[in-house]
Amino acid sequence: MSAGRPALSALTVRLAELGLVLPDVSAPKGVYAPAVRSGLHVMVSGQVPLANGTLVATGRVGDGVTLAEAYALSRRCALAALAAADSVAGRAAVVGVVKVVGYVASADGFIQLPGVVDGASELFLSVFGEAGRHARSAVGVARLPLDSPVEIDVLFEVAERDAD
Amino acid sequence: MSAGRPALSALTVRLAELGLVLPDVSAPKGVYAPAVRSGLHVMVSGQVPLANGTLVATGRVGDGVTLAEAYALSRRCALAALAAADSVAGRAAVVGVVKVVGYVASADGFIQLPGVVDGASELFLSVFGEAGRHARSAVGVARLPLDSPVEIDVLFEVAERDAD
Amino acid sequence: MSAGRPALSALTVRLAELGLVLPDVSAPKGVYAPAVRSGLHVMVSGQVPLANGTLVATGRVGDGVTLAEAYALSRRCALAALAAADSVAGRAAVVGVVKVVGYVASADGFIQLPGVVDGASELFLSVFGEAGRHARSAVGVARLPLDSPVEIDVLFEVAERDAD
Repeated sequence: MSAGRPALSALTVRLAELGLVLPDVSAPKGVYAPAVRSGLHVMVSGQVPLANGTLVATGRVGDGVTLAEAYALSRRCALAALAAADSVAGRAAVVGVVKVVGYVASADGFIQLPGVVDGASELFLSVFGEAGRHARSAVGVARLPLDSPVEIDVLFEVAERDAD
Repeated sequence: MSAGRPALSALTVRLAELGLVLPDVSAPKGVYAPAVRSGLHVMVSGQVPLANGTLVATGRVGDGVTLAEAYALSRRCALAALAAADSVAGRAAVVGVVKVVGYVASADGFIQLPGVVDGASELFLSVFGEAGRHARSAVGVARLPLDSPVEIDVLFEVAERDAD
Repeated sequence: MSAGRPALSALTVRLAELGLVLPDVSAPKGVYAPAVRSGLHVMVSGQVPLANGTLVATGRVGDGVTLAEAYALSRRCALAALAAADSVAGRAAVVGVVKVVGYVASADGFIQLPGVVDGASELFLSVFGEAGRHARSAVGVARLPLDSPVEIDVLFEVAERDAD
């Protein structure tokens, strides 16, 4: 590798192939961390769909926010979760996804929760292949922080990088 | 052991003593896995009470679904979670339960959540004895996937089996 | 150290500096354990704000329970979680906090969830310093066990103690 040019990580290369760029890691909305590494796991704080620090949508799914919109929001949360995980991985690399909990602020009677959380799950499959296939729970809740329609909570697996 | 007959696992034997059989692992309702192993843990996707791929009850507890019915549903979810964990344990054995989160779709004012989730907890105690005694959270939520009254999320512990 | 007097743990000393005392660990409201150790983690059952086994407040935040009250309840839950973790740590010491999920029983339209869960997060930062800074999700739910306004779920990290 030519001196002075940092190695692109496998993750960065894969994201570029998919036309994706990791967003900046958003500042927490309280006294916590965007993500914490513990052993071979990184636990990420629940991500809401932000652009430039502001929610891109508010309200409940099935009442103002459609399933298709919520799917896209959930995908955006997943990319933000990946950015947060990458920011704390240090010399390790994020190599897969173990668990996702998808919280959906649900209008009365809205039950298509799996279709919403698939936005996050499909992103992880695109990025990591089978190592991105995770255990998952989808839950319809009353309200989420800042009135977000979706919040995505992720447990990633990391591995030490080979020395280069 | 006679050749050609596979050893019954300790888990299978214990379930038989209790008159229980692991159900088939249900197909995920989205792009995720029924369960994922990571180190000495297996994380299982949130389980809803299915029979032949269909929910055995829908609606909210305290409004159409009684506490006693919800207790039985929660027990059914726990057995399904065990089946999912067993299916990915590979050469390891599922030996205990670390954590359960029980989500209960709650009618307005329904607060007997612990009594619902006890259906799952008591099953795990029967199967694993004290190794089945777990940390637990019970949460009353708005709606669950497919309008399920209950969803049970489990973190199991696995151990390598002795060679036989 | 003089014989016959047990060493005070670093945790006990730090709590005393803050004017805090760990409460008694409350009896579970069902067939589960207050906390379970697994490897270098302790997972604590969801904690509700109790005094002498009774909830110190009931109802939903934003409707009878104010944000300031809920902040204090959340802090109380965090101290109870720490007591539960300490009770199972055995020869290990609780050294930090990896993840918090804060469930808030939310009145319709109440979205200041991060402000509620900060009560728990700030306690952990006071006690552990930067090792107390954790990943976090805040979720607004329908109802919680016993009609509690808040439930705090914590994953702690433990480390073996040096022999003394």
